[in-house]
Amino acid sequence: MIYLDNSATTKPYKEVLDTFVTVSEKYFANPSSLHSKGGEAENLLGQARRSIAQLLHVTPSEIVFTSGGTEGNNMAIKGIAFQHQNRGKHLITTGVEHASSYESFQLLESQGFEVTYLPVDETGSVSIEDLKKSIRPETILVSMLHVNNETGTLQPIKEMGEVLKEHPKVFFHVDNVQGMGKVHLPIKEYGVDLCTISAHKIHGLKGTGVLYVKNGVTLSPLFTGGEQEFRKRAGTENVAGIVSMAKALRIILQEMNAKKDHLITIKKQLLNGLKNIEDIEINTPEDGSAPHIINFSVKNVKPEVLIHALDEKDIYVSTRSACSSKQGGASRILLQMGLGEQRASTALRLSTSYDNTKEEIELVLQVLQKEITNLKKVMR
Amino acid sequence: MIYLDNSATTKPYKEVLDTFVTVSEKYFANPSSLHSKGGEAENLLGQARRSIAQLLHVTPSEIVFTSGGTEGNNMAIKGIAFQHQNRGKHLITTGVEHASSYESFQLLESQGFEVTYLPVDETGSVSIEDLKKSIRPETILVSMLHVNNETGTLQPIKEMGEVLKEHPKVFFHVDNVQGMGKVHLPIKEYGVDLCTISAHKIHGLKGTGVLYVKNGVTLSPLFTGGEQEFRKRAGTENVAGIVSMAKALRIILQEMNAKKDHLITIKKQLLNGLKNIEDIEINTPEDGSAPHIINFSVKNVKPEVLIHALDEKDIYVSTRSACSSKQGGASRILLQMGLGEQRASTALRLSTSYDNTKEEIELVLQVLQKEITNLKKVMR
Repeated sequence: MIYLDNSATTKPYKEVLDTFVTVSEKYFANPSSLHSKGGEAENLLGQARRSIAQLLHVTPSEIVFTSGGTEGNNMAIKGIAFQHQNRGKHLITTGVEHASSYESFQLLESQGFEVTYLPVDETGSVSIEDLKKSIRPETILVSMLHVNNETGTLQPIKEMGEVLKEHPKVFFHVDNVQGMGKVHLPIKEYGVDLCTISAHKIHGLKGTGVLYVKNGVTLSPLFTGGEQEFRKRAGTENVAGIVSMAKALRIILQEMNAKKDHLITIKKQLLNGLKNIEDIEINTPEDGSAPHIINFSVKNVKPEVLIHALDEKDIYVSTRSACSSKQGGASRILLQMGLGEQRASTALRLSTSYDNTKEEIELVLQVLQKEITNLKKVMR
Repeated sequence: MIYLDNSATTKPYKEVLDTFVTVSEKYFANPSSLHSKGGEAENLLGQARRSIAQLLHVTPSEIVFTSGGTEGNNMAIKGIAFQHQNRGKHLITTGVEHASSYESFQLLESQGFEVTYLPVDETGSVSIEDLKKSIRPETILVSMLHVNNETGTLQPIKEMGEVLKEHPKVFFHVDNVQGMGKVHLPIKEYGVDLCTISAHKIHGLKGTGVLYVKNGVTLSPLFTGGEQEFRKRAGTENVAGIVSMAKALRIILQEMNAKKDHLITIKKQLLNGLKNIEDIEINTPEDGSAPHIINFSVKNVKPEVLIHALDEKDIYVSTRSACSSKQGGASRILLQMGLGEQRASTALRLSTSYDNTKEEIELVLQVLQKEITNLKKVMR
């Protein structure tokens, strides 16, 4: 099996699953229970919180555990909007966000908020000048993907943070679901107020995630009820999932340190190979993109057909965001980049992990070349 | 270890954990991915949905997977309120709900909704007459615990369903987190429109749950984004957690069939024993309560002190709802029942599972008798 759909989800590390089982068996008590078994579970939860905070160079009270990336984005965007609407109802984002952000903004528009969707260039990137021009006295939030989940395009988070430091009342939310463990993002240094992370994109388990919420930032919770998570997110904590997420984060950051060059090498290998295949157009920019995502279109070939052809060779790739993959039609992201209906309807996404090898990439390129040639013949 | 805190959380069944590991290892793909590995995960998800629907005697399209009971209650209550507010802004509940419901209603009150909190009698039960009197043309929701999580008191869900059948535009939400697998609740027969279930209360895993939403019932989602869960709950599904929840539900319903009498027997044993201990007052009604929860107060003894004394004998019990256990002070539930500040501040809750034995209960009673006698001596 050659798995190149790591932006949709990743295979859990063995250590992650082992940890999950141990915690579920031995520390199953409710961390809110007052007895010592509850206390042990609470201690584990606190250790995981401290460990994750340390790895992200933030403080433990800034770590809010969630059920994943979609909850994190919804909580950050709606939570800030509803909490701070008395100060202003203007929000800024882009048209190339993940569905969980994009649809949260669309909902807020239907509830009287005004949203500026910054345009992107043909690489998928927004301009700092556009951001500066869009900020108004009634702006309360700027929300932005770090690494685009379809194209791998990086947004200039550092430069945006610089701009927003001059507007201390505007909250800065970064969706780092795709970037975590692949592209360094110093949260504090860049002036980020809220940052979304999902465990199952970094070889952790589905159903767990983190929303970083800077100390002092208040938001209206999605879940009201118990006093868990600093009253920002009620509900019994998924202790085993959280402890195993701390493990996943530690491992992937070690991998990033040790194997970042490897990811870049196989990305170059992929890019060079793809460029040599007739009728392929690369949608991911060579500069300013993450090391693990390549998006390309194949002229006149339905991407579903190629996915199935590769599938038969035990190679797994995708069309776009998994959360939008069943909509069919053209990719909203590629359309926003101005690539046109045809190119936006024929895109494939390959997303690697640190475990993919040069040999796998070579094989994928050969199979792609052969399948595209065959399909062209059939279609003629 | 004698674990009598099953209302806070339960130990996962071995089969549940085994299933979780197998699915996480072999079927880790994103069920929304178009390739065959995504298809396999999607099939498993569909099987789990059909299996749970069958066990609950509902249809698969009525099963919405959530992260647990708190999410389910928030989604049902806020989701119905926001979606149907144009038709009316009056909601009906009680003062003895779980924090996740109670605080959702308090939030809605702050946003212009009007909430009637039905009074309860000294057993914790509401009256059908009060319900009838409180329904108005602008009422859109009645929300009610089936089994009270602190006292085990049953609400007359069947009779309420009868009343509400005459008001077909009023939605009926039942929080069945504590009742599932312990007290039969025929969802369809009782006319329930929305029903909350949590996996970790039935020996499944934390971070998973179900909200039953009757076909045709629309609600405003908490999470917007992907098209998962019939567009009622966006986000990558926790496939392994969901499949293992289906397993937990199947097992606990078998247990309920086979061992319900056992639960009733050890509840009687507990009740009879407790009655013979001086200074104990039973707060759980003998009739009209679930077979697994007993709440009692010990005059002039701080419950934390007893919890720690029992803890040293490897016996684990709780004060109240885990989600409210760190607030200290008197129990909101017992106060609403009119039991007074003193009794509401000295309550303990024992909650059993099908695995607790008569021998364990006998030992717990002996230890309780001894510890209470000792504490009284010390205090004199």
